[in-house]
Amino acid sequence: MLVCTGFAAPSATEPLGKISFNRRDVGAKDVQIEILFCGVCHSDLHFARNEWNFTEYPACPGHEIVGKVVKAGAEVTKFKVGDKVGVGCLVDSCRVCPACVEGLEQYCIKGQVGTYGGTEPVIGGPTFGGYSDSIVVDQDFVLRVPEGMDLAAAAPLLCAGITLYSPLRHWGAGPGKKIGIIGLGGLGHMGVKLAHAMGATTVLFTTSPSKVEDGKRLGADLVVISSDTAEMEKHTESFDFIINTVSAAMDISVFLELIKRDGALVQVGAPEHPLPVPVFPLLMKRRSLTGSAIGGIAETQEMLDFCAAHRLTADVEVIPIQKINEAYERMLKSDVKYRFSIDMASLKAA
Amino acid sequence: MLVCTGFAAPSATEPLGKISFNRRDVGAKDVQIEILFCGVCHSDLHFARNEWNFTEYPACPGHEIVGKVVKAGAEVTKFKVGDKVGVGCLVDSCRVCPACVEGLEQYCIKGQVGTYGGTEPVIGGPTFGGYSDSIVVDQDFVLRVPEGMDLAAAAPLLCAGITLYSPLRHWGAGPGKKIGIIGLGGLGHMGVKLAHAMGATTVLFTTSPSKVEDGKRLGADLVVISSDTAEMEKHTESFDFIINTVSAAMDISVFLELIKRDGALVQVGAPEHPLPVPVFPLLMKRRSLTGSAIGGIAETQEMLDFCAAHRLTADVEVIPIQKINEAYERMLKSDVKYRFSIDMASLKAA
Repeated sequence: MLVCTGFAAPSATEPLGKISFNRRDVGAKDVQIEILFCGVCHSDLHFARNEWNFTEYPACPGHEIVGKVVKAGAEVTKFKVGDKVGVGCLVDSCRVCPACVEGLEQYCIKGQVGTYGGTEPVIGGPTFGGYSDSIVVDQDFVLRVPEGMDLAAAAPLLCAGITLYSPLRHWGAGPGKKIGIIGLGGLGHMGVKLAHAMGATTVLFTTSPSKVEDGKRLGADLVVISSDTAEMEKHTESFDFIINTVSAAMDISVFLELIKRDGALVQVGAPEHPLPVPVFPLLMKRRSLTGSAIGGIAETQEMLDFCAAHRLTADVEVIPIQKINEAYERMLKSDVKYRFSIDMASLKAA
Repeated sequence: MLVCTGFAAPSATEPLGKISFNRRDVGAKDVQIEILFCGVCHSDLHFARNEWNFTEYPACPGHEIVGKVVKAGAEVTKFKVGDKVGVGCLVDSCRVCPACVEGLEQYCIKGQVGTYGGTEPVIGGPTFGGYSDSIVVDQDFVLRVPEGMDLAAAAPLLCAGITLYSPLRHWGAGPGKKIGIIGLGGLGHMGVKLAHAMGATTVLFTTSPSKVEDGKRLGADLVVISSDTAEMEKHTESFDFIINTVSAAMDISVFLELIKRDGALVQVGAPEHPLPVPVFPLLMKRRSLTGSAIGGIAETQEMLDFCAAHRLTADVEVIPIQKINEAYERMLKSDVKYRFSIDMASLKAA
């Protein structure tokens, strides 16, 4: 067993603190990664506080992992010691179902293995995430971080980046398309950057006038205050699709009206309670309400390479692991521009 | 002006009764149709009772019209006196917007002209529907009823038929596909017949054990009682798409789980209030909740020809116009197998 150090929640109501735990030893096809940075995703907080009702404790979150390979199994061909690599939301899948065969491991029919909160396929028990010093992952679920990319700012690409990249590609963002992004947080700021880099006319919807300038700086062609009814109505039936990054309960009907016939409103955040959906705006223009979850391994690599080619990463505030509980509270108040990235070297001092 | 006789609601709360009203004279491109049969759609009742809040009175419903041409304008090329023809839910559209150019007049950006409750494009005022002796319609919005088709049973194809045909075609029903139809009413029974005729594996979902045998008779390969949780779970993630013909409030989440990745739940009925939609089942399999409204003119003709080729029409109960108010009450209790069709000859005796 590999003894690791990490930060974990001991229960749903206690702050995260330092723990030791075991990971499997490096197998023939595994690499062992020294974790350098780990992004802080809102899912981490949901998981730590058992808001999805499946958390086992101690719960060690983190699925936006960047580090370097320190050990490679005998049959590893894709990576060597010293390589800069990333790990996202999944560390294994069945590999044989139609979804896996199509490279859509995130939709694995048997269920993929989550980087945290999954079931460890070799030694059993829960998987532990990236708020730790090391992780052991099958080479097929490890990504190559392109040369020269800032590692702290690259970490959030592994979840926030791919969560927006995949639907933008799937629904066809590109030149001549008008795309909306609802919300300017960790997910939304990546959506604006990526849609702009893909050449789409990019419109950010926000409720905060204070975010207009930042939205434009990040790449939005236009920022619309979604509570401004007159401004919203100017865009009726003009969007090819809109991605909603807001996971709080909200009225989506005003956005449905802005979408063209056969267009989609794509949820990438999942509100806790069912969303009330008016059916007429779907029916009268054959619009869809749909959703998308992260991306497959090949597409995640494609996203990292796309980001490198466009010199694009997340906007991050780097914190030591000791500030993680405070960071959660600030995240709940949207007080971060736009993603926390934990400098994992701080763990040694904890 | 052409003076017509019809049945109309004088107000939202009074029964339908006989009236006289004017239609435009036959223009150069119009045909005048003697109405022989008119199907009774649930929309007729919503309209008569102002349940959609746009009804002007007197309100003459009916948009499942079959009749014969009795007069043709000087420039009419498509039809001649004596032809058996049909008119569905729309009698005009802008003809120049992208939707109209694509043959999707039902999604006309400027708004199509409804057969009833629309704005008469020549003489102004509201359009009057098919519960009447005659109608005058531009030839481009008139359908040819195939030779030999039973006219009473053909009438409901003009709305119920095309409402199911269009989404079945759009989402790709055919051999090798597994398609669900929720509800066995006027719409649902056409869905079962059409999906079966297209060669899809057709599953009917109903809450009524009494409808199992009829569902199979109409063409369902399987009938599933949707309240039977164990039976429902056997079909998890197995449907290419499911069409929901129920316009009452219902829990759609159990059906979402039965749909494959990238599949759709298609609403063709529009519940009055927003539907509560859980987002996780959309997000985790990239499923869609979407909708579809009737069909374009060319597709409606295609549907009629398809039905003729497959010797397929609606199951109807023929009634005289004098029973329309009673028929509405029976329709509200689902006491009809599966569509009322008014024999318009009865109007002369009214």
